[in-house]
Amino acid sequence: MTRPCIICVAITGSVPTRADNPAVPITVEEQIESTHEAFEAGAAICHAHVRNDDETPTSDPEKFARLKEGLEKHCPGMIVQFSTGGRSGAGKARGGMLPLRPDMASLTVGSNNFPTRVYENPPDLVDWLAGEMREYDIKPEIEAFDLSHIFQAAKMNREGKIPGHLYIQFVMGVKNAMPADRDVFDYYLHTVKRLVPDAEWCAAGIGRHQIELNEWCIAAGGHART
Amino acid sequence: MTRPCIICVAITGSVPTRADNPAVPITVEEQIESTHEAFEAGAAICHAHVRNDDETPTSDPEKFARLKEGLEKHCPGMIVQFSTGGRSGAGKARGGMLPLRPDMASLTVGSNNFPTRVYENPPDLVDWLAGEMREYDIKPEIEAFDLSHIFQAAKMNREGKIPGHLYIQFVMGVKNAMPADRDVFDYYLHTVKRLVPDAEWCAAGIGRHQIELNEWCIAAGGHART
Ligand SMILES: [Zn+2]
Ligand SMILES: [Zn+2]
Ligand SMILES: [Zn+2]
Ligand SMILES: [Zn+2]
Repeated sequence: MTRPCIICVAITGSVPTRADNPAVPITVEEQIESTHEAFEAGAAICHAHVRNDDETPTSDPEKFARLKEGLEKHCPGMIVQFSTGGRSGAGKARGGMLPLRPDMASLTVGSNNFPTRVYENPPDLVDWLAGEMREYDIKPEIEAFDLSHIFQAAKMNREGKIPGHLYIQFVMGVKNAMPADRDVFDYYLHTVKRLVPDAEWCAAGIGRHQIELNEWCIAAGGHART
Repeated sequence: MTRPCIICVAITGSVPTRADNPAVPITVEEQIESTHEAFEAGAAICHAHVRNDDETPTSDPEKFARLKEGLEKHCPGMIVQFSTGGRSGAGKARGGMLPLRPDMASLTVGSNNFPTRVYENPPDLVDWLAGEMREYDIKPEIEAFDLSHIFQAAKMNREGKIPGHLYIQFVMGVKNAMPADRDVFDYYLHTVKRLVPDAEWCAAGIGRHQIELNEWCIAAGGHART
């Protein structure tokens, strides 16, 4: 099975600051510039978080709106994916930008531990976010931080809560969640093929794990993420 | 590999009430009586929650103390395991009974979704509960609600936070967590043997899944739970 390789660029993320890496784009203008470079280099999807001026993560719809507008202008045809991740807000604030109708949005369908806290995705919030994505015709990228999240996504797919072909990202290497483990990666893939054979999938690693995961991913016919 | 089969009886649990099943033992006296019957029938471990008079779950150390005393008298030699599960209290209250030095206590090392909420086990609480169990010489039963929990337990074992041979229970069939799936059961087992080959393990299903899981368990050389 060969498939075109989709390269997904994650600009900024929600954690690193300029103190970690002076090259991290913080303002919307910097994000657009940085994505434009990745787009010229061949990236097809932009996974986006936005930041406040003090570099803390936010879900501010106004910032997401400016980002989307800039990306549409500078990177025509690029798939724009907004993060609904929990570091940037609590409860329904995490989905407050979905009426902007990005092409895609991230969706975590279960809960798990993060390095210092619980990544909380209670069932009613997950259902609400999925409902907003249906309403605004947004393709979810399922963020699978653990094996049960694949089962939950498959169940929501069967129930019509996440219609169409699933797009699942395996997230590995986050401390206190699933480590970057090749045997588990293969089992994730086996499980996706068993439960939702028509799903697409990719993998994201944290920091030094990303390159390794890209290699596993491309070797197995998935997409790459930078 | 053959091993003696340990039968573990879970009295009461934290969810069902007399409205669901009039036979559910609620008071400590009823719990002791009911465990005694299971003990006579061959159960070796008693996994215990306690309840308030209104049937809501609690972590009240005084109730746990009376239960332990009664079990020691009526079921001599039976292994007493206290639940530190999150339905019965929040934060450190969940471990307030550990100074009573039960033989075992349940320990969930990650977070996941339950039917209507997040089962929150933040990393610092998990470390604190594990520390209390070391201090009071209590054997943890790791409750693995998802695959990453097995990795986390193995890591805590390597780091000395959970010393000795791990005792891991696979929990399957909880809505919004891991379903009772034979392929996953086999992969859990494969993972335990790969990461912590000297661990013991058992499996708990919810409701109608328990009998099925016991069959898988006994066929694979694990322990049974009722
Ligand atoms: Zn991707
Ligand atoms: Zn993200
Ligand atoms: Zn057991
Ligand atoms: Zn229990």
